[in-house]
Amino acid sequence: MEAFSDGVFAIAITLLVLEIGVPTGSEEDLTRALLEQWPSYLAYLVSFATIGAVWLAHVAITEHLDRATSTLIRLNLLLLTVVSFLPFPTRLMAEYVREDAPERVATTVYGINLLLCSLLVSLLWRFAVREGLMPRDTSDDDVTTLTKRLRLGRLASYPVMIVLGWFLPVLSVLAKIRAAEQPGAAPVRPFVRPARPHPASRW
Amino acid sequence: MEAFSDGVFAIAITLLVLEIGVPTGSEEDLTRALLEQWPSYLAYLVSFATIGAVWLAHVAITEHLDRATSTLIRLNLLLLTVVSFLPFPTRLMAEYVREDAPERVATTVYGINLLLCSLLVSLLWRFAVREGLMPRDTSDDDVTTLTKRLRLGRLASYPVMIVLGWFLPVLSVLAKIRAAEQPGAAPVRPFVRPARPHPASRW
Amino acid sequence: MEAFSDGVFAIAITLLVLEIGVPTGSEEDLTRALLEQWPSYLAYLVSFATIGAVWLAHVAITEHLDRATSTLIRLNLLLLTVVSFLPFPTRLMAEYVREDAPERVATTVYGINLLLCSLLVSLLWRFAVREGLMPRDTSDDDVTTLTKRLRLGRLASYPVMIVLGWFLPVLSVLAKIRAAEQPGAAPVRPFVRPARPHPASRW
Amino acid sequence: MEAFSDGVFAIAITLLVLEIGVPTGSEEDLTRALLEQWPSYLAYLVSFATIGAVWLAHVAITEHLDRATSTLIRLNLLLLTVVSFLPFPTRLMAEYVREDAPERVATTVYGINLLLCSLLVSLLWRFAVREGLMPRDTSDDDVTTLTKRLRLGRLASYPVMIVLGWFLPVLSVLAKIRAAEQPGAAPVRPFVRPARPHPASRW
Repeated sequence: MEAFSDGVFAIAITLLVLEIGVPTGSEEDLTRALLEQWPSYLAYLVSFATIGAVWLAHVAITEHLDRATSTLIRLNLLLLTVVSFLPFPTRLMAEYVREDAPERVATTVYGINLLLCSLLVSLLWRFAVREGLMPRDTSDDDVTTLTKRLRLGRLASYPVMIVLGWFLPVLSVLAKIRAAEQPGAAPVRPFVRPARPHPASRW
Repeated sequence: MEAFSDGVFAIAITLLVLEIGVPTGSEEDLTRALLEQWPSYLAYLVSFATIGAVWLAHVAITEHLDRATSTLIRLNLLLLTVVSFLPFPTRLMAEYVREDAPERVATTVYGINLLLCSLLVSLLWRFAVREGLMPRDTSDDDVTTLTKRLRLGRLASYPVMIVLGWFLPVLSVLAKIRAAEQPGAAPVRPFVRPARPHPASRW
Repeated sequence: MEAFSDGVFAIAITLLVLEIGVPTGSEEDLTRALLEQWPSYLAYLVSFATIGAVWLAHVAITEHLDRATSTLIRLNLLLLTVVSFLPFPTRLMAEYVREDAPERVATTVYGINLLLCSLLVSLLWRFAVREGLMPRDTSDDDVTTLTKRLRLGRLASYPVMIVLGWFLPVLSVLAKIRAAEQPGAAPVRPFVRPARPHPASRW
Repeated sequence: MEAFSDGVFAIAITLLVLEIGVPTGSEEDLTRALLEQWPSYLAYLVSFATIGAVWLAHVAITEHLDRATSTLIRLNLLLLTVVSFLPFPTRLMAEYVREDAPERVATTVYGINLLLCSLLVSLLWRFAVREGLMPRDTSDDDVTTLTKRLRLGRLASYPVMIVLGWFLPVLSVLAKIRAAEQPGAAPVRPFVRPARPHPASRW
């Protein structure tokens, strides 16, 4: 279970870079085009840090256990499902962060996914404690320390920060102001987004 | 063999998220565009659960064996070929589930791939039992338990459910009704699908 | 070295599926569109089998060694460079196999890549034998057996078969005949190939 | 920590091949189209060699340590963030190497990323030495040898070579001369770059 989970965490964290798009048609001013793409870099960093934190918590949990029940393995697979899914809302946020209404939808979807990651890793530990899957000689102090560390409140700091952005979309406003100043700037497109439908196709 | 197989399972399960497309041109109503993409999420979940289940069965098998023959390794590579292939029919189904005739083709291809996964993991165990690759002290009860668990009938529950959808395409009808209600809705395109040929190119 | 190499083999073999494209604009006849894509499936299978065979040879080699020199590690990295590169010519071949002159170029590039994989895994073993990196108690018979198995001639069977296809392009002719019979068939495009330049853009 | 880091290195190094694009619309002269893509191959090789070198240094470091502090793990995650990011500037450089001003921007971004990789792996070792994370019986000689090997100057050779290319862009000039000679040559597009905005869309 450990090797497989480690593998999934490592792959999900490395796939995040594929969500960052190379700006196209920016021969005139590549520096500006790259700087305007800051939501992509921010989303990359937040998702990387989140998967990293969940992985660290997961390692701490598996180190404390000496056996696994079938339910624990299923709960673990559910956590991996949610972690593996993270590249999707990351891309969604990077793509829609500059626009008004969609930005709120994208941020909410992203925040919910981050929250589910934290929730499930916390649940995994609580379940293991309740089932008594630790070795017999584990001290109560050890268990209490990890339980504190995996308190939902602490793990939830990332999602909270992001959902706050929903009510105080300063970041997106900033982005929109800069975009408004440069109406003729080269379009910045994410890596693998398919071309938008050509206007002519509506003729 | 174990580390390599675990790696392939972990990668195939994590690559599935790349099949989910970010809706484009949906500035007006991103929520609806995201909800309309439900076949992608469903295909993601079914494929994730299938690879997870095949991986669990594979772990149970390799835990029971203490050596491997050359034929077993080849059979294992064949299983990995089929598991690694799964992202392709997953994308195919997500893309064609709303259309009438192609939906049946996509569902069939997907169902056959899922069936092959189950079939090969079951074959792998039967072959290992026949060749006697378990340690000498394995009890007959252990073998019988795993043989029951890997009964084709049980593993085949996923494909059966999906192939049933071929004869009762309620899901796709539902999707088509909703699509019919919104003729002007923004087109929902999968992640990396290349642009459809422009109508003008047939002039 | 082993864990890292196993990881690279596992990832390269799983990335191959991303080279297979979902046919687009094939609502009328998805079955035919899928069948016409057979070069993609063939390239997937050949590349999968080749990476699998090179991985098996690599496992046999590392099992026989008990230490590594700095040169061996560099030679190993070179082998991994060539193995990781394989998805590129695989896609190239899948894409150009139906066209006349480019088909020969693609087949040659693909064949050279396969040949380099076989060559380097064979070199790796020869180098290890010359440097005496096996444990002291390895019997000469063991070494001879593996040396025979890694004879270039045997490993080169895949590339030879493919390079033969250069001189006897029966396969591509077959494909072309079928393509000629269906001039109005839906275009089959690989997964992530960017759209060809629109004809109108030359106006 | 080791298994996870090895996984991330292995995945980042294997994802590099996805940055190499298959030339499209090159039925007439695929050989020339492939040869003109040399910046992609060069970037693939340099990035592969860099990740390989950083991985080798990382293995040497973790082999010398017998425990890890929380700060070391965080520093390690930071190194992985930078390594995982490398495919992005690799693609950027491959795409913009033939153009004048953007080529300098792309080269600088790429050089900075390579430099950060070297810097962080060097910092990781210095931090481990200062914290005394080696086993008690590690000889001073061993530590001195690895410290020399991880001297910034030595690891920085790659970035230095590339940043030099900024001031002596002979390579890009060469590329531009060849491009100028063939004004009608087929356009060479990277693998997953989205289509440039169609000229007609500005009507």
